[in-house]
Amino acid sequence: MKDHVSGKITPVLLAGGSGTRLWPVSRKTFPKQFSSITGDETLFQAAVRRLAGPVYAPPIVMTNADFRFIVAGQLEQTGVSGATIVVEPVGRNTAPAILAAAQMVASGNPLGLVLVAPSDHMISDSAAFSAIVTKAVEIVKTGRIVVFGVRPDRPASAYGYLELADQEGDFQMVRRFIEKPATDRAADLLADGNCLWNAGIFLFQAQAMIDEFRNHAPEFLSPVQASLDLARHDTDFLWLGDEPWRELPDRSIDYAIMEKSGNIAVCRLSCHWADLGGWDSVWHEAVAACPTGNAVVADEGATAIDCRNVLLRSGGDDLQVVGIGLRDMIVVATSDAVLVADLKRAQDVRLAVDALAAKRRKQAVAFPREHRPWGWYETLARADRFQVKRIMVEPGASLSLQKHMHRSEHWVVVSGTAQVTINDDLRLVSENESVYVPLGAVHRMTNPGKVPVILIEVQTGVYLEEDDIIRYHDQYARPVHPQMPVDGDGAEALPFAAQADVNNAARHVS
Amino acid sequence: MKDHVSGKITPVLLAGGSGTRLWPVSRKTFPKQFSSITGDETLFQAAVRRLAGPVYAPPIVMTNADFRFIVAGQLEQTGVSGATIVVEPVGRNTAPAILAAAQMVASGNPLGLVLVAPSDHMISDSAAFSAIVTKAVEIVKTGRIVVFGVRPDRPASAYGYLELADQEGDFQMVRRFIEKPATDRAADLLADGNCLWNAGIFLFQAQAMIDEFRNHAPEFLSPVQASLDLARHDTDFLWLGDEPWRELPDRSIDYAIMEKSGNIAVCRLSCHWADLGGWDSVWHEAVAACPTGNAVVADEGATAIDCRNVLLRSGGDDLQVVGIGLRDMIVVATSDAVLVADLKRAQDVRLAVDALAAKRRKQAVAFPREHRPWGWYETLARADRFQVKRIMVEPGASLSLQKHMHRSEHWVVVSGTAQVTINDDLRLVSENESVYVPLGAVHRMTNPGKVPVILIEVQTGVYLEEDDIIRYHDQYARPVHPQMPVDGDGAEALPFAAQADVNNAARHVS
Repeated sequence: MKDHVSGKITPVLLAGGSGTRLWPVSRKTFPKQFSSITGDETLFQAAVRRLAGPVYAPPIVMTNADFRFIVAGQLEQTGVSGATIVVEPVGRNTAPAILAAAQMVASGNPLGLVLVAPSDHMISDSAAFSAIVTKAVEIVKTGRIVVFGVRPDRPASAYGYLELADQEGDFQMVRRFIEKPATDRAADLLADGNCLWNAGIFLFQAQAMIDEFRNHAPEFLSPVQASLDLARHDTDFLWLGDEPWRELPDRSIDYAIMEKSGNIAVCRLSCHWADLGGWDSVWHEAVAACPTGNAVVADEGATAIDCRNVLLRSGGDDLQVVGIGLRDMIVVATSDAVLVADLKRAQDVRLAVDALAAKRRKQAVAFPREHRPWGWYETLARADRFQVKRIMVEPGASLSLQKHMHRSEHWVVVSGTAQVTINDDLRLVSENESVYVPLGAVHRMTNPGKVPVILIEVQTGVYLEEDDIIRYHDQYARPVHPQMPVDGDGAEALPFAAQADVNNAARHVS
Repeated sequence: MKDHVSGKITPVLLAGGSGTRLWPVSRKTFPKQFSSITGDETLFQAAVRRLAGPVYAPPIVMTNADFRFIVAGQLEQTGVSGATIVVEPVGRNTAPAILAAAQMVASGNPLGLVLVAPSDHMISDSAAFSAIVTKAVEIVKTGRIVVFGVRPDRPASAYGYLELADQEGDFQMVRRFIEKPATDRAADLLADGNCLWNAGIFLFQAQAMIDEFRNHAPEFLSPVQASLDLARHDTDFLWLGDEPWRELPDRSIDYAIMEKSGNIAVCRLSCHWADLGGWDSVWHEAVAACPTGNAVVADEGATAIDCRNVLLRSGGDDLQVVGIGLRDMIVVATSDAVLVADLKRAQDVRLAVDALAAKRRKQAVAFPREHRPWGWYETLARADRFQVKRIMVEPGASLSLQKHMHRSEHWVVVSGTAQVTINDDLRLVSENESVYVPLGAVHRMTNPGKVPVILIEVQTGVYLEEDDIIRYHDQYARPVHPQMPVDGDGAEALPFAAQADVNNAARHVS
């Protein structure tokens, strides 16, 4: 953590949230920060890159066990190195996460600068943003906490508002934090002209934030410190200590500190900013970025005929979406779900998620593509006694050593070269080759090459659920069976020792 | 054709149409008559069953080469036997098709009764319909042509209208046929109270219709008779002679005969009828059949939240559709296309088809599932150098003997037992077994069993289009390569003789 004493700013990215207002593109198991909502990059990756460069130390990413491999994978693609991925044992909102990051930085340098930011917002001009941060550093050096505010252009009820105090020298203090207001109240605030939207971005010296907690929320200090003291490193992750963290109250930073402190200065985020907090916001940004007649936004797989004020988003070329005669509508399709909503109801999309959850539909929470530490898989077809999956294994990655009690598997490699273990047999299987894994065989798939392995798996059997798996070894520290397979069950051929269940948070399969 | 002299009615089902107003469920290659729009049965099958029973002879089905196997397959499922499937070389609208059927019946018995009906309409009460037909038979025996009319309940502009003359004894004659009117004109007709919708169903003695053609459209007589004289039977089909048929004018029966003849009586179709000529009609029928609050119709895979006057139709459980706050809307999803339209624009759905055709999207005309005489296939995944298909082969069916120049195939049987020929090798491949077809191997798949074969095919190669096929033999009379494979290329093992290209209308693959 030597960067923390260098005068550089440590970015803290909050990447543990799982909002549903952008369903079906954002789902609990793969929320919007990890998706490309506007542009090619994911929002998380854009945030990482925005906070990289000479003035920044490597980032701290606050996330949870479910998202840790997504974070690690997306971080790697950005080329930003040295990040610390902190795994919160359970979600406890922003207050504990920000305090933990402040304590981590303070342990190296109490005056270390910390910039906390959501990972799911859009800021298109990174240079302008950096200039604003540089200005804010001057305020922070006076010991104040800086919150970034955005000048409102409409009476949005989806944002918190900052009411400003009088100018004090070079900057203004916040007089009051106002939680998301009703539309009428938002209109009043807009008319008043003395309010900004709260962008949820904060800059401070580490010790200053700890001091705020000491003054306004001291009950957080010991449990957060205890979780840090108990933390352990495990492959790419810093796992916070479980028990003290669970005792923490679930509280936002606004509620725990900001609304109570008199030490909050504001810095105007004068560059373009959007929280993409609903499809109306996404539509608004897309229209602004690329103004078209009738405010119609349609992607490549979508066709708008006689439409006005409409967002049409398709699930890709394979799912064509056509709108005819639509007004003020949102149509968002993915390969397994379609949302059609009145634009004014954009903030009610959680109703769709609730309804599908009540019907126990997978679409409420998850995507067809399941991410794993070694890559991903997706079901292509499923019937009574068979299932077809497409599986991608990253270079250098390996599925766990495992066996199934109720199914056989045919693997056809269609790209790359896999190293396949089946009982005592170890072989390479390359493009246009296949291999059969009989029911009960101890097997493993590894990608020893430089390009992804893609294979088609055809499973047959009467029970095809993910929980038909006995795992003997896993390079990602996921739980394994306490006993190795016995002789003749493949054990001798396997180059590893038995491994205990080291990770009770892991719930992944394969 | 002995039934034609028995006094029974010969049903003539028109099943060659390919409307697009129910896109994306109805497409050119698999139009609505072959789909289940309301209920479980397809509209065509419901029509076949409605016109089966003691008073009916086996039906004549007028269709085209593209639909012939769909017709044959769906007919078989109804259990109605003895049908004649007539293949029109090209579509020439209803006049030639009806005349051909009349001539077929007249050749056995000039006084034979003929009932012509579309195969894509909905008549829910078959018994009531039969009673009406029985009544109409009495009128027909006076030498008149009977057209069935429906009392209008709204000023629909999608139907033709029949203006009635004064009562003549037991029935009324048609004074005038009115083509689809504008909505204003339709409202006048409705107010007038002397008009019925033209249901497009006709009953007549065969010779009476031929006489009408002689009087009003004599130019059809010779070419239609010539096409019948040149017709040949081929497996399940009667192929009309090509050249004379191509010379025929493209004309509807209304335009060719009905609007000109003074010999048309009307019979009121007092049972429930709908032409399902657009999604508005489908919505209207569904609401009527199952009245719900707010006139919302949603199937199992669809969820309506705060909606009113809405049809929500999903592509099945795997594609969940959710509507929020919708008014007067149609949302129809299939696995590869979604239509979202204002209910008032239901008759403009062809605009969607035109737009997708202009973008060269397959969804404009075809479904992912491709029907073949031996069963069907669908693509599960497609990428640069591989493709995964699910293939179903009917019991007793057989793909053509073939080879590919640019791809290898892995077949994994997941249900049933296939007999597979690969060059000189003939073997049975059963559930959970796989077989490899190398590039260039002459191969064939047959289902010798009693249950469908389902297999997963993984193709690899740089060129994966359907036209990479050399076909040596085909049991469905589709075009084959003039030369058999040479020795060592599998010829000796193959129990058949070379077969010439006998059917220039066949365009199917595999």
